Amino acid sequence: MIRATDDNEYYELLSPTSLPKASGFLWNEKMMIHMNCRGYAVAQFMQPEPAKYSYAPNLEAKTFMQPEQPYYAHHPGRFVYVKDEENGKVFSAPYEPVRTLPDKYTFAVGKNNIVWKIENDGIGIEMSLSLPKEDAMELWRVKVTNLSQTKRKISIYPYFTIGYMSWMNQSGEYKQELQGIVASAITPYQKYQDYAKIKLLKDKTFLLADQEPFAWEVNQEAFEGEGGITSPSSIQNEVLSKGESRYESPVAVLQYRLEMEPGEEQAYRFIFGPAKDETEIAQIRQSLFVDRNANGEDGFVQAEREYAEYIKEGRGCIEIKTPDADLDNFVNHWLPRQMYYHGQTNRLTTDPQTRNYLQDNMGMSYIKPQMARAAFLTALSQQNASGAMPDGIILHEAAELKYINQVPHTDHCVWLPICLSTYLDETNDYSILDEKVPFADGEEVASVFEHINRAMDWLMGARDARGLNFIDQGDWCDPMNMVGYKGKGVSGWLTMASAYAFIIWADICGKSEQLETSKKFRLAADETNVVINKYLWDGEWYARGITDDNVVFGISTDKEGRIFINPQGWALLCGAADPVKQKKLMQAVEEQLETPYGVEKLAPAYTAMREDVGRVTQKFPGTAENGAVYNHAAAFYIYALYQVGEQDDAYRLLRKMLPGPDAADILRRGQLPVFIPNYYRGAYRQYPNTAGRSSHLFNTGTVPWVYRCLIDGLFGLKGNEAGIQVHPQLPSEWQEVTVKRTFRGAELHIDIKRESGVEKTEVYLNGNLIEDGIIKDLTAGAEYSVLVKIPSLNA
Amino acid sequence: MIRATDDNEYYELLSPTSLPKASGFLWNEKMMIHMNCRGYAVAQFMQPEPAKYSYAPNLEAKTFMQPEQPYYAHHPGRFVYVKDEENGKVFSAPYEPVRTLPDKYTFAVGKNNIVWKIENDGIGIEMSLSLPKEDAMELWRVKVTNLSQTKRKISIYPYFTIGYMSWMNQSGEYKQELQGIVASAITPYQKYQDYAKIKLLKDKTFLLADQEPFAWEVNQEAFEGEGGITSPSSIQNEVLSKGESRYESPVAVLQYRLEMEPGEEQAYRFIFGPAKDETEIAQIRQSLFVDRNANGEDGFVQAEREYAEYIKEGRGCIEIKTPDADLDNFVNHWLPRQMYYHGQTNRLTTDPQTRNYLQDNMGMSYIKPQMARAAFLTALSQQNASGAMPDGIILHEAAELKYINQVPHTDHCVWLPICLSTYLDETNDYSILDEKVPFADGEEVASVFEHINRAMDWLMGARDARGLNFIDQGDWCDPMNMVGYKGKGVSGWLTMASAYAFIIWADICGKSEQLETSKKFRLAADETNVVINKYLWDGEWYARGITDDNVVFGISTDKEGRIFINPQGWALLCGAADPVKQKKLMQAVEEQLETPYGVEKLAPAYTAMREDVGRVTQKFPGTAENGAVYNHAAAFYIYALYQVGEQDDAYRLLRKMLPGPDAADILRRGQLPVFIPNYYRGAYRQYPNTAGRSSHLFNTGTVPWVYRCLIDGLFGLKGNEAGIQVHPQLPSEWQEVTVKRTFRGAELHIDIKRESGVEKTEVYLNGNLIEDGIIKDLTAGAEYSVLVKIPSLNA
Repeated sequence: MIRATDDNEYYELLSPTSLPKASGFLWNEKMMIHMNCRGYAVAQFMQPEPAKYSYAPNLEAKTFMQPEQPYYAHHPGRFVYVKDEENGKVFSAPYEPVRTLPDKYTFAVGKNNIVWKIENDGIGIEMSLSLPKEDAMELWRVKVTNLSQTKRKISIYPYFTIGYMSWMNQSGEYKQELQGIVASAITPYQKYQDYAKIKLLKDKTFLLADQEPFAWEVNQEAFEGEGGITSPSSIQNEVLSKGESRYESPVAVLQYRLEMEPGEEQAYRFIFGPAKDETEIAQIRQSLFVDRNANGEDGFVQAEREYAEYIKEGRGCIEIKTPDADLDNFVNHWLPRQMYYHGQTNRLTTDPQTRNYLQDNMGMSYIKPQMARAAFLTALSQQNASGAMPDGIILHEAAELKYINQVPHTDHCVWLPICLSTYLDETNDYSILDEKVPFADGEEVASVFEHINRAMDWLMGARDARGLNFIDQGDWCDPMNMVGYKGKGVSGWLTMASAYAFIIWADICGKSEQLETSKKFRLAADETNVVINKYLWDGEWYARGITDDNVVFGISTDKEGRIFINPQGWALLCGAADPVKQKKLMQAVEEQLETPYGVEKLAPAYTAMREDVGRVTQKFPGTAENGAVYNHAAAFYIYALYQVGEQDDAYRLLRKMLPGPDAADILRRGQLPVFIPNYYRGAYRQYPNTAGRSSHLFNTGTVPWVYRCLIDGLFGLKGNEAGIQVHPQLPSEWQEVTVKRTFRGAELHIDIKRESGVEKTEVYLNGNLIEDGIIKDLTAGAEYSVLVKIPSLNA
Repeated sequence: MIRATDDNEYYELLSPTSLPKASGFLWNEKMMIHMNCRGYAVAQFMQPEPAKYSYAPNLEAKTFMQPEQPYYAHHPGRFVYVKDEENGKVFSAPYEPVRTLPDKYTFAVGKNNIVWKIENDGIGIEMSLSLPKEDAMELWRVKVTNLSQTKRKISIYPYFTIGYMSWMNQSGEYKQELQGIVASAITPYQKYQDYAKIKLLKDKTFLLADQEPFAWEVNQEAFEGEGGITSPSSIQNEVLSKGESRYESPVAVLQYRLEMEPGEEQAYRFIFGPAKDETEIAQIRQSLFVDRNANGEDGFVQAEREYAEYIKEGRGCIEIKTPDADLDNFVNHWLPRQMYYHGQTNRLTTDPQTRNYLQDNMGMSYIKPQMARAAFLTALSQQNASGAMPDGIILHEAAELKYINQVPHTDHCVWLPICLSTYLDETNDYSILDEKVPFADGEEVASVFEHINRAMDWLMGARDARGLNFIDQGDWCDPMNMVGYKGKGVSGWLTMASAYAFIIWADICGKSEQLETSKKFRLAADETNVVINKYLWDGEWYARGITDDNVVFGISTDKEGRIFINPQGWALLCGAADPVKQKKLMQAVEEQLETPYGVEKLAPAYTAMREDVGRVTQKFPGTAENGAVYNHAAAFYIYALYQVGEQDDAYRLLRKMLPGPDAADILRRGQLPVFIPNYYRGAYRQYPNTAGRSSHLFNTGTVPWVYRCLIDGLFGLKGNEAGIQVHPQLPSEWQEVTVKRTFRGAELHIDIKRESGVEKTEVYLNGNLIEDGIIKDLTAGAEYSVLVKIPSLNA
């Protein structure tokens, strides 16, 4: 059903119907495209807010990306109809809209391109998509091959949907001078104040072809006729009508007529995307299809190569070889790519949530630490002098806080030291603490150190008389919005997260000789942990919070929402849980939250509104925050398990986060193992039939935490001020792994193996035992060979 | 292609493909449904804001009704699949989604129901839709007939789309105890403040059946399978899977298996709509399918009858018989129905634009004058003490001004006397002027007389030094939003409309013995007309306005937007144009604005943004306000032509407003002649191929003005304080018409005929000549016979 290519650069799906929602995604800083295996596409570009150039057939709401994207006949997509001119038979590649099952089918999701190979009735169609490095446009190649033994007369019809662009003004026509189709629209608006923005928008959609078409159609209705999208009437004609669209939904269809000898190939290239005006489109044509470099390559070829190079820059800092080949493939290729996407694009929003922005850049610390550094400073420059962090970080002068960022949350400060610590571990760049950064309000400028102190002080201040942190209209969990909106309710998780942030900050202060401050926050953490145990321990696990009306929830007497994963994991992290409590809560998690597809966020999922908890209880059970296997939360928990030395449990749960390896699991998840989705359907005990399904959303804070699980936990190769502290935590069944670790410019080749007789981890650098297990004095550019012996469990 | 039934109660379309966008609409005060001939539906209900219960397949934007509604494969709709169980053949009624051309097809749009009759392969399917009088739900009948000579085994599958309900929570299941399908959703929201509203919403969609189905399907994806919507895989099975939907798009499909003898009929009934909860659905089932009245009728039958009676209340006040049968049918049946719709539903918004609300109720003066009276008082109670009228009238305590009502317009005051005058003409109820009504701001209460005085004073004050009325961000033309947003630009039309309002108000004041006031406003009108001629006359016609930067536009030197219809018509109405100017401007209109499909709003349509005019110039040429045959404006002009005695021109243009009578014209318009759309595509001289197409939007202020054209103009049967002033203005080619005029409770049977020797209109009541042509002293309940002789033109 699926397979990885030999070089692991592609995951290939071998049928268009087995995983109908399977997809791949490509992006650059200006755009993102999510391509479904059947040809459907969701693309958006930034100008500066997200916009479309290939629209739905109706006036679609502008909103954030939705999980479990519904597809339907006229969903936007990219297709090629193929007609046998001798018998009139029509099929379409890759599969939609005609839905003829091809003789052969491959959907290959690569890191910098996506390729379909279809064979049907002796005709081969290969479609491939890449992007340029910087611009918003799609670079398509279509190759047609006569695989049969006879001469064939066919027409191919590359079909790019444009859809319902605008109720105000939409049209489309073929432009001879551009050799392509240009659809025009005006973004609707009503207030003249909006005109200044509207007039700058790239409202045109273009399709440029490198070869002159035989005919074209630009009018969706005329193209389809009574045959409809699955059997367009106009394809039954010899020649497309060369029509136009005047206030009708445009479409971009070209016709090429081919007479092909056996074995003959024909290759076409197309560029599809948004533009401001025809001058811009003409420039694109010139630079991509006309101008050539010294090697005779045109801009199209160069752009593809530049994009491949751009994506390659998103390598992580480990390459692994373990007994788990699927894990290896994911960690070596796909996980850093997903992390890089987050860091490079900020999820294609101009106001990322502060917690997302910080965590995404925590991940960037492993790939491009300079970008992480800059991001931390950007975030701090939007902090108030009170220490409070805003709900979103404004990345563009015209941006404003939207959607959920208009709802006050109380957790943003905790991410500052937590995310910064990874940056410091990876770079040892403590100079960032001395950087001077302004506050958003007033004139004051202060060091990063002072900024974070204030953030920690703010967390200490935003507490009730018991010492528990207010939740306001949400903490990390957005839709838990009515626990504390009256100003009294508190978050158990946030109290723990604060304690953990204090510990992390105390550590950082300790290392940067701020000993008084370090002591202060360590004490604060200790005091917080006392409070946590006093008010939140429920006997077998920790409660999630206490409402405005002083009702403790997430406890054993609750019928729904009885146990939440986050307070359990973070009680491990912050040290609130003593060994007895640790054991109890881990058992509760395993019994009540663990499923074949990972750890659920809460259980049992709510089936009805609980007004004192809020919106989360209205979400469909098993989706999004309500009882899903919410991978971000699961990753926190796995990280915590490594922190308390539970590596077997940790690995088991980590492995459940990736689809596969067996076909049944892949089928259940419904996605290729090329990204971790934000959730898998949960509510396993309530809705076993749907549990495990992927949300197909690749925006998630999960990925940097998974990477931390690998670096700090599984492979135990975390940086510190001296070098790398080696402390692997391999699952019991693994005998040996090798890791190539890139660290501060050095390259370490690390072989970790179990050896009988070894009682605790022994680290050898170039054959010499390192007593404290810290590999020090690494030189950028140098390579090191490290042997790590760990105790054998068979002995 | 189309035909009216013998009783003119239905317009029938005889093919599903000849007018693919042809539609009918039904409504009550809680809902509206727009049914397309092929089975597509757009329905919304009020709770109190417009909401849906049958959704698009994606997250559709919530917005106002769009013109030229695009249809697509998964557009919401109501269908019946039919499968021959012996040979597996499938078709669907009425036409979509399978698109098998039926052997016979009728789409009959009636006043209180919509009926399809399909025959295919010996099976007859009749589908009919009605509504209850007060509740938001659809009442469906489906009748199946074996028209063949043999016994038939078939399955029918009533298929009601539900679509993508919500990203937060959606599901569906069949409920045995309800004998129906219930789909549940939660309207997404993010701010806890919205919860109070959200929790009250009717978020469920139900389909109830009066007969137990053999099987069902509630999951859209499972229903379609790889066959897709045009050939659903599950229909190929013997039995639908009885599935459910869990966070997937629900659908409501039932299966009935039938063995039918030749000639046998089977009838089914269904109820489809929104509900708050299952208790409400159970009550609906009980009251419509179970409880029976003394005659043994269940609630469903009673509801259908009540609805027919409700619609019958929307009769107009004339019944005509003229040489133009199509006009007769439209005026006797469809025009008052459309007017009634506007008055009863306020266009299904909670904040109708003030101008719309007043004009819609101007129309209601002919149908239910008490409702018009109440509406005028409601509108005035929202006037500011300054005289200014708000942009929209709030009809529900929770309503707020939305969309275009957030943009300040300056014309609302003019509609007060203009619309009130029709009410007074029709009722002679001058007591309304003494009603005491509060102002929206402050504590002051004043008479209607004083309210309107202040409105007129406000118009006199909102002028520049020249005496021209400021346009601000729009007058009657919404998107002419940048003429005067800086506070200087003025509207030519609004200045004329103000003058006309002053005249009308002066008349009303004169009749109610407010002679000083009357004099004041008559003088104001005269002075205004001087200013109009000084600044706006361009030599052959009147300019549309003058921008903030003192640029006169809508004049002969403009390449686009050279001439606008409104200043021409209103210059006739307000008396600014002397006979020479009248002749010139009428000639200019005929030459530059008249098309085979009516009079365009402006010409040549703008093809690019003109920043000093605004958004109208960005609309697609020939659509909406930019050069369309905008029927509301055309109706003003026709009304003005009658005022100046140009009855032949007036009739010609009036006739162009109705689709037909010939087939070519119907095809061009693309709609049935059951309503006047807000526009037909214009830009006839630029885009002749698309000119004439209907917008298919039935919300329009056109209809009361057309009715006024008939009452005050064509048939000349306008009321005044004494009775009816008879002054027909028949087109030259008409020899005779009869009119039944209902007026203040009396019924007049009027025969108007040309007679040679007659030099001017002669009015005979019961055989007696009435010198002044005013039929006086009419008694409610009485009938009168009136003969009107008008000069013969043949002599």
